[in-house]
Amino acid sequence: MRSVRTAKKVFGSLLGRPFDLDQPGELGRVRTESSPYGIDMGIGYPRCDPAALVAAAARATAGWRAAGTRRRAGLAVEMLRRLNTRSHELALAVHHTTGQPPQAAFWSAGPRAQDRALGAVALAFAESERVPADLRWERARGCGQPLAMRGTSNLVPRGVSLLIGCPDYPLWNGYPGLFASLVTGNPVIVAPHPRSVLPMAITVRVARQVLAEAGHTPDIVTLAVAKPAERLHERLATDPAVRIVDFTGSAQFAGWLKEYARQAATFVDRTGLNTVIVDSTGDYRDLVRGLAHSLCRCSGTVRTTPQNILVPTTGIATDEGRKSLGDFGADLGEAVDRLLGHPARVGRLLGAIVSDTVRAGLAEATRCGTVLHASGALRHPNHPGADVRSPLLVRLAAQDERIYAREWPGPVSFLVGTDSTSHSLALFRRTVGRHGASYAAVHSTDPLVLAVAETAALDAGVHLVQNLADDFPADPSSAGADLPPEGAHFVTGRFRVVRSRQHAAGTAPAPVVEAAPTPAPTSIGAAESARAPAPGAGSAADPADG
Amino acid sequence: MRSVRTAKKVFGSLLGRPFDLDQPGELGRVRTESSPYGIDMGIGYPRCDPAALVAAAARATAGWRAAGTRRRAGLAVEMLRRLNTRSHELALAVHHTTGQPPQAAFWSAGPRAQDRALGAVALAFAESERVPADLRWERARGCGQPLAMRGTSNLVPRGVSLLIGCPDYPLWNGYPGLFASLVTGNPVIVAPHPRSVLPMAITVRVARQVLAEAGHTPDIVTLAVAKPAERLHERLATDPAVRIVDFTGSAQFAGWLKEYARQAATFVDRTGLNTVIVDSTGDYRDLVRGLAHSLCRCSGTVRTTPQNILVPTTGIATDEGRKSLGDFGADLGEAVDRLLGHPARVGRLLGAIVSDTVRAGLAEATRCGTVLHASGALRHPNHPGADVRSPLLVRLAAQDERIYAREWPGPVSFLVGTDSTSHSLALFRRTVGRHGASYAAVHSTDPLVLAVAETAALDAGVHLVQNLADDFPADPSSAGADLPPEGAHFVTGRFRVVRSRQHAAGTAPAPVVEAAPTPAPTSIGAAESARAPAPGAGSAADPADG
Repeated sequence: MRSVRTAKKVFGSLLGRPFDLDQPGELGRVRTESSPYGIDMGIGYPRCDPAALVAAAARATAGWRAAGTRRRAGLAVEMLRRLNTRSHELALAVHHTTGQPPQAAFWSAGPRAQDRALGAVALAFAESERVPADLRWERARGCGQPLAMRGTSNLVPRGVSLLIGCPDYPLWNGYPGLFASLVTGNPVIVAPHPRSVLPMAITVRVARQVLAEAGHTPDIVTLAVAKPAERLHERLATDPAVRIVDFTGSAQFAGWLKEYARQAATFVDRTGLNTVIVDSTGDYRDLVRGLAHSLCRCSGTVRTTPQNILVPTTGIATDEGRKSLGDFGADLGEAVDRLLGHPARVGRLLGAIVSDTVRAGLAEATRCGTVLHASGALRHPNHPGADVRSPLLVRLAAQDERIYAREWPGPVSFLVGTDSTSHSLALFRRTVGRHGASYAAVHSTDPLVLAVAETAALDAGVHLVQNLADDFPADPSSAGADLPPEGAHFVTGRFRVVRSRQHAAGTAPAPVVEAAPTPAPTSIGAAESARAPAPGAGSAADPADG
Repeated sequence: MRSVRTAKKVFGSLLGRPFDLDQPGELGRVRTESSPYGIDMGIGYPRCDPAALVAAAARATAGWRAAGTRRRAGLAVEMLRRLNTRSHELALAVHHTTGQPPQAAFWSAGPRAQDRALGAVALAFAESERVPADLRWERARGCGQPLAMRGTSNLVPRGVSLLIGCPDYPLWNGYPGLFASLVTGNPVIVAPHPRSVLPMAITVRVARQVLAEAGHTPDIVTLAVAKPAERLHERLATDPAVRIVDFTGSAQFAGWLKEYARQAATFVDRTGLNTVIVDSTGDYRDLVRGLAHSLCRCSGTVRTTPQNILVPTTGIATDEGRKSLGDFGADLGEAVDRLLGHPARVGRLLGAIVSDTVRAGLAEATRCGTVLHASGALRHPNHPGADVRSPLLVRLAAQDERIYAREWPGPVSFLVGTDSTSHSLALFRRTVGRHGASYAAVHSTDPLVLAVAETAALDAGVHLVQNLADDFPADPSSAGADLPPEGAHFVTGRFRVVRSRQHAAGTAPAPVVEAAPTPAPTSIGAAESARAPAPGAGSAADPADG
């Protein structure tokens, strides 16, 4: 891996310059990024005709299919090897485009993102290799010996794949789909979020270099960038030639894809209402500290914040005695303040806000209920101009569902008072069942509550963490996050299997050929005809005799 | 397996009676079938409120999920064991509802359909078992020893599954989806085609018996029947609670599903333009005889007929010398007549026409071009009332694409004269690429032509047979048809994987509990708290230290 110093130099050399990719259909340059840490990005990406990108990817399809799974997987691994050496450079690109603090950016852009990609490569390779390439079987016959048959199974990729980039975790969320599509034989058009292009632009450049060096057309991977007003994502996602769409993000755009991108197989991981159910705990301090940490982490930049914290109004049993809902809210607010009391931690923990939507959401949420912890502007130790804010915690009642059953971006959390843990579980089941979530968490010392929560999470189809206050599967900083993406469907849905069949050479019951036909009998069909038919087996006329 | 005699007795006992299933929401009885062989069916199936069937299936979901893969696969195998004993009864049901001749009905309803089902059970079982149930890993930490973590992966079925029955091959096409859904934990509503209910009604009854005997609600499998005017399939396919739809049949209804059944994952196998490319042959007699046989087989009842036969107008090279297009058409017509010259073969080979659409299509196709072989009414040896017709062969020119690029049901085939084999391949690529097909076939002694045809078939995504005149993968009479359904996606798309995670018991870094909290520390969280934290590992506050 190149050093941080080299990475900074390389990163600096990219700023304020055109970023060349030598792609088809180039119409000009487009600049869409600004660093919330005050660095002038000014990188000019190629703005290409979307139709030209789709056409180039479509042209590349047959050759990439013919390369075969082994070669494709090998090239994917080589891409990852080269990306690995650029981990610090990719982390800087993520830091400056998403606002994530440096260490979080390294987690979500570096080896952990590459590890997820490698998991997708391995899964795609394994699932492809499980398709039996050569088949041999016997065709039963009513009379005479059985006919030996042979066939091949061929993996047919779906076609052009589109990766719609996510502004929070462009690489961590983007790599699995990109590499799964590539290894299963589908060319990929990478269309990053306009706010965070650079991490994917570097990735695409590396991929194109590897492809070109191996003698393939680099247009198997291209980058599509445009100003938001051009609605490039919508245009590409509905192109008839685009057959796969990957997207991680808002339920709203996920719904749009379902509605309009019907020609494509969609692999969508939608965000939603991350929910924490608090029933009781054997370690109150750890719970409060861990939750406070989760509220702060990367605040304003990613959608892994626990939004809804469901707690009975009658309070919770803890190792420090019974805690009222009021106590719990106050303790949580205090823990946040304690955490952000060290200026160095502000810079390392909080993210810088990139988007006006987040600012508007914070202002609106403040008016929705009793503020338990106000979101205040904080000074970033190294970047005084960065818009860094502490998390907002608002108390709501269970009946305020119209508020908390919405997805709020940024560091907005609600402490929702419920009638009981059963009531919390019912609210969880209903809201997350309808709107989804990246994960849910439950805190309880009661095995029955844990069991019911597990069933509710299965019903809602979300990952569950039990009695872990700061370790969520949707979070790149979590070790378990490196587990492979959910299930084989993620790769098997990217190809079909098509078979080809014929008589096994030399065993077909065709009559003896007296004079060799033109052309010369080099083909299987002709070679087969050298055998006499078995007695009584010559007529293909009547299967009812069998 | 029960004898044919017993099967006939059982079949006879079903006629003219209500068919009881004891399902929820029963509103009355519905009769929708009539045998083209003149037997009065008069079986009254339960007509159930579709909403009640969906609600019952939805209620059954959690219990069926909890049963686990092993138990579900075991029950599926028991269903198949019992269905196997009723193979002759199921064959009679298919014979009398689809019009298929008896032997063909036995192929498509008996052991070969069960074998396909067993393949789906095995694949679903294997793919489910590959999801690791228990996960253990270590969470890296900046300081102190790593944290031992554990988790479980849970297979979450998508939900209520709908099988829309096909009128040609109700069991052969229906079983893979039915059993794949069941084993992956999804309750199934079976909605057969109104013309062919009985085969699936018997299947559903057996499934419900097995489920009830094992202590499960039988509503995990239900039958939905209605008069065509009620548009039951459309209503069920768009129900928000229906999450999976299986369908094999016309591209038109497949398109409708894609358009409207958007809440569901659809597994669609559409029919289309079955195409035969004739370039040259080393065995002209076998080619002509085999093709003639394919034109006749089950004529009028199934969609496996080769519809478009593409042949250069300059003729083809054969082991009997060059054959002009005219010779080939005449030889093919003669071979059909020879084949149908034996009255016994008429009954065994041809199917009885059930549908007016087929009759109308035959009349229309006759007016489209030069008739090479007219479709004539034939006398069925045992059922004088059955509408049995010989296949129609019409010669078209390559430019008549608006005719042959449509799907024609029944025994309608076109001999299309092309400029060359290259032209044939281009037409094939375009028409089948756009409209799909169940299979394609190529006849050539030239390895280059075979290779190009193979690539074209991959591009079009259809199965290809090479130099086999009468053995098509879409046909239950073909031995290779028993190969497993196409790829793992067929089962992996029916479930998701959801994870649950926690500290591995006894290793969590929580502070020592001085007084046990209420409730008693039986839960994992509480048990964990008996361990002291590792030095310096107590604070979850700052991941940036890591």
